[in-house]
Amino acid sequence: MSAIERRAERLAALAAERELDLLTVTDLVNVRYLTGFTGTSGICALGPGVRVFGTDFRYYERVKPALTGYEVRRARRDVLEIPQQLVEEGAKEGAKLRVGFDDAHMTVRAHARLTELLGERAELVAAGGLVEQLRAVKDAGELRLMAEAAALADEIYAWLVSEHGLAGHTERAVALALEAKATALGADGLSFPPIVAAADNGALPHAEPRDAEITRGTLVVVDLGCRLAGYCSDCTRTFATGAVGDEEREVYALVQQAQAAALAAVRAGAGTRELDGVARRIIEEAGHAEEFGHGLGHGVGLEVHEAPRLGPGAAGELAAGNAVTIEPGVYLPGRFGVRIEDLVAVRADGADVLTTTPKDLVEV
Amino acid sequence: MSAIERRAERLAALAAERELDLLTVTDLVNVRYLTGFTGTSGICALGPGVRVFGTDFRYYERVKPALTGYEVRRARRDVLEIPQQLVEEGAKEGAKLRVGFDDAHMTVRAHARLTELLGERAELVAAGGLVEQLRAVKDAGELRLMAEAAALADEIYAWLVSEHGLAGHTERAVALALEAKATALGADGLSFPPIVAAADNGALPHAEPRDAEITRGTLVVVDLGCRLAGYCSDCTRTFATGAVGDEEREVYALVQQAQAAALAAVRAGAGTRELDGVARRIIEEAGHAEEFGHGLGHGVGLEVHEAPRLGPGAAGELAAGNAVTIEPGVYLPGRFGVRIEDLVAVRADGADVLTTTPKDLVEV
Repeated sequence: MSAIERRAERLAALAAERELDLLTVTDLVNVRYLTGFTGTSGICALGPGVRVFGTDFRYYERVKPALTGYEVRRARRDVLEIPQQLVEEGAKEGAKLRVGFDDAHMTVRAHARLTELLGERAELVAAGGLVEQLRAVKDAGELRLMAEAAALADEIYAWLVSEHGLAGHTERAVALALEAKATALGADGLSFPPIVAAADNGALPHAEPRDAEITRGTLVVVDLGCRLAGYCSDCTRTFATGAVGDEEREVYALVQQAQAAALAAVRAGAGTRELDGVARRIIEEAGHAEEFGHGLGHGVGLEVHEAPRLGPGAAGELAAGNAVTIEPGVYLPGRFGVRIEDLVAVRADGADVLTTTPKDLVEV
Repeated sequence: MSAIERRAERLAALAAERELDLLTVTDLVNVRYLTGFTGTSGICALGPGVRVFGTDFRYYERVKPALTGYEVRRARRDVLEIPQQLVEEGAKEGAKLRVGFDDAHMTVRAHARLTELLGERAELVAAGGLVEQLRAVKDAGELRLMAEAAALADEIYAWLVSEHGLAGHTERAVALALEAKATALGADGLSFPPIVAAADNGALPHAEPRDAEITRGTLVVVDLGCRLAGYCSDCTRTFATGAVGDEEREVYALVQQAQAAALAAVRAGAGTRELDGVARRIIEEAGHAEEFGHGLGHGVGLEVHEAPRLGPGAAGELAAGNAVTIEPGVYLPGRFGVRIEDLVAVRADGADVLTTTPKDLVEV
């Protein structure tokens, strides 16, 4: 069975558990996961004996011969016609079909249109998150792509440290150089606009690169990931541009220690809240509780932020095949910030760390 | 009055026409248009005397001093708390507040959460498309950025023709080179993954670049735009790699003629359906009606596809300040395609063509 058929089987099983006669998948990242389709107009509809992919004329001719495991249909006006057709074909005398839709992604307007198209023959049932549940557990092929994407980011970091440098460039120039390097190395691009945040800008967890020149003797937070065949990597390192003060070194060592402790605790079955607590406790005990204002990490895959989440408000446990970041940080407003982030693949008994750029404080 | 204050005034006036006590804006492109904010967590809420922008801790400190014309609030859990607070503050005895939400973008799940947060004190009213209505008419500053973005794409085309070339490279290699060139020239990136589609691949309007080498003696459709400070450009040219057949030349000349005729008809007051008809009639009369399977064009701005649309099913008229593409095409399945696309700014008496790459058939 191909990966595409396997994913369809699993999703259909989740739909059956919810007693759905038909499950529609409209979010394009989820559609890509199920079919490999990367266009802008697509829908999947699955049910007992039903595997249908719908798209419009722009993509139909290309997809039809290439997509196995699905019946490919061409939508005339919009892809919501596909569930309409299937409901008409499957209508049962007297009984309404239960049709699942993705309430976490479908807009209020699209929902109103689908309701109108299906009419009396069907009942719409909120069923968001099912594909995301599958996506959270990566297969070997996905992990291989993510490891390759992470290796590209490692290569960019090595080039940044040994060749390009930081001090004397503006944050924005470094960010652009990172992006150009990613393309040159064969990545499809970066997972997100990179963060290059020196000194006080580093105290903003989601800083935007400034046109200001990076000075000597400060900390610089760099956060970047590469994208390869749709899959993302994500890695943060904090560098020093020459000698920095004692407090910078102390905070760096603290974050490094918290990150290492959390990494060591990663394994299938570890609680997502408890894992966050491993790093958070260390940072709290050093008196920086208020300055670690985000969760420990997040899942990564076709999206750079996906399930599962690791944080003080998270629930559930890690599973083998999850790919998550471990990224504690300490941010001193107006002064500086430190974040260290690895991307890891969860195993039954530990973790494979996909990002291998060194973590001791390096002067660039 | 700053552009930001002017936009807020106009939007508040549109909300007042709909008798809304409060209008919430949640789509992040719309939020960027209103405030310049480019982060991932933001909301605007406007009403009589109310101009509030909400974001989370990651952005709050940065935005607060920078954003004038709005009261900046920090959301604790999610930005939908902001309308909740405003409704509580503005609650009238016995009367429900009418709160507009963006039904075209808000998900069913977010709508359910907002309904719960607002409770009995408010009635949610579908009000999508109001900001898009403003965005469709560009101001001078926006048109300047779009002209700059278009000029960058022109520079890339000139480089492609005179230096890089097409034949002998794979479509994918050319696409990557275009992207790298855009970054090198100072664009923030491309407006969308570029299309480089030779021979039969050119017959797919939304082709993806293949790993196949581009041969001599064929047509190649190249579609690319640059992004600058958020604003997009969009331009398609079809090139020949050496001598091509008579039919290729005839179809090229036909599309060129249809494109020129439509361009000449652009002015404020022109119907969006009628303008499509100008190009479509020429293509129909040449017997290729079935092979021009998309609309004539679309608005461009912060998004590469926005209002207004030009097509056989469109309604309404162009207005001065609209920025739209004029892009007829003829696609012969399995053989080749031709598309020629310019980006134009609509004036009262005509159009400023922002894309200036030559349109006669060039051998590359």
